[in-house]
Amino acid sequence: MQLEELTRLYATRVNAALDQLLTETAGPSELLKQALDYSLLNGGKRLRPLLVYATGQALGVSLAECDRPAMAVELIHAYSLVHDDLPAMDDDDLRRGRPTCHKAFDEATAILVGDALQTLAFEALADEQQPSALAMVKTLAQASGTQGMVAGQMLDLQGEGQQLSLEELERLHSHKTGALIRAAVRLGGLAAGANAVTLTTLDTYAKALGLAFQVQDDLLDVKGDETTLGKKTGSDALLHKATYPGLLGVEGAEQKAQELVKQACASLNNLSGEWSSLVALANWSINRNF
Amino acid sequence: MQLEELTRLYATRVNAALDQLLTETAGPSELLKQALDYSLLNGGKRLRPLLVYATGQALGVSLAECDRPAMAVELIHAYSLVHDDLPAMDDDDLRRGRPTCHKAFDEATAILVGDALQTLAFEALADEQQPSALAMVKTLAQASGTQGMVAGQMLDLQGEGQQLSLEELERLHSHKTGALIRAAVRLGGLAAGANAVTLTTLDTYAKALGLAFQVQDDLLDVKGDETTLGKKTGSDALLHKATYPGLLGVEGAEQKAQELVKQACASLNNLSGEWSSLVALANWSINRNF
Repeated sequence: MQLEELTRLYATRVNAALDQLLTETAGPSELLKQALDYSLLNGGKRLRPLLVYATGQALGVSLAECDRPAMAVELIHAYSLVHDDLPAMDDDDLRRGRPTCHKAFDEATAILVGDALQTLAFEALADEQQPSALAMVKTLAQASGTQGMVAGQMLDLQGEGQQLSLEELERLHSHKTGALIRAAVRLGGLAAGANAVTLTTLDTYAKALGLAFQVQDDLLDVKGDETTLGKKTGSDALLHKATYPGLLGVEGAEQKAQELVKQACASLNNLSGEWSSLVALANWSINRNF
Repeated sequence: MQLEELTRLYATRVNAALDQLLTETAGPSELLKQALDYSLLNGGKRLRPLLVYATGQALGVSLAECDRPAMAVELIHAYSLVHDDLPAMDDDDLRRGRPTCHKAFDEATAILVGDALQTLAFEALADEQQPSALAMVKTLAQASGTQGMVAGQMLDLQGEGQQLSLEELERLHSHKTGALIRAAVRLGGLAAGANAVTLTTLDTYAKALGLAFQVQDDLLDVKGDETTLGKKTGSDALLHKATYPGLLGVEGAEQKAQELVKQACASLNNLSGEWSSLVALANWSINRNF
């Protein structure tokens, strides 16, 4: 199957699972349910669930076994977006072309929606039929907290307006976005009961992939097309943000992205199985124009 | 041992465990670590850990087995306080006599601190040596999210300035504060490997206890002493908040509190073991003047 088809298939699948989860866990506040639906079921790319499903499938486990980790990692991502958009954080009015949660509802609701989405991520994983469930909880928590995503967000806030070295920039991204991408791949591996060697090899792939995505994001902000991207370009320069093209030049950044993808794909050669979808995804990560 | 001694013992124990957890999980942002220390290690009453330890001890399990659930439930409570204090929520400048997290640091940091504290709660539970760990994750997630604490906070926001019936008030409190108190008792039971009947009986205790605490909180706001309480009284009336004394009168509320405590203690008679500390705690819940 082509990557595009797979992406659509997996996104449809995780959206249906998330919709059902929100319905099953709905409590006494209808307004909270509405705000959760609004913030979660909004047509995101579902990159992280895609990584869970594609990894699990390559290792021979059913899609159904991957639903819970796929939901969980997307729930963490979704909570981080709702909180990131808050006035005290990035102060964004729009997300995927629609008013952000705190604009469509209010700030207090957006804070609670983010909180509840995070809780739901761990609730989704708490399945006593899944032998790796506790390892999944650990993986997701470590990737999201003080040693992962939240740390990256703090480093980002602290780094605003400062000159970062390449090393500092990499540290920031490896926490802010890299940790959750690595968690997604690892969750797919855990769903399939993969052994430690396989998990480590997969992690080499995921680490390089996460960074490649970030380099390409930075490149698109310099040379992307606003209409295709669906957002303004040049914002990094405007905000004096440290970026790969800023530190390496456009050509240097392009070269780095290509090396990362080569590295990611090479690591998969060490594994048996059919890894074409993860290879295609790695290539897409730096060839995409949105 | 007297309740007061026990309280001190358990609080000291959970504080040390939390301090160690924050050190072990410290990531690349020192500022985040500082803000987490500030918000978590601040001399709270540690009521929820006390419930975990006291329940576990009555069922014969070691204190060490209770450390992780005791930390986890306090971490959820602590995150909720940091977010509750935010300007968009209750907009409080002081917590336990010190500037709230967003005052001591800033709003963005406080949002991230709350987020990280919640993550840490689940990370603390992910202990593969504990057979009930996954059941604990489920218990804590259900008590904290859309069917528990966060739902209660939404109901509270939605109910501001509205006349609530006794039933609506009870629904609000059973979610906002009751769910986590019940989770604490259940976590103690799970740590001890208690069976379903014991867990249900304990839940009857916890449900009544949680409500008794709330009724007493409302009473103290009417007739408490500001110096002993360490906060202003009369704020519920000022904010036109629905309260038990408001709906039942002071005497009616006192009677209700006593009935709840009787009910809580009666349920413990159905269990074998030594339950004197939970009985003492229930009595204290309505005799306290702070």
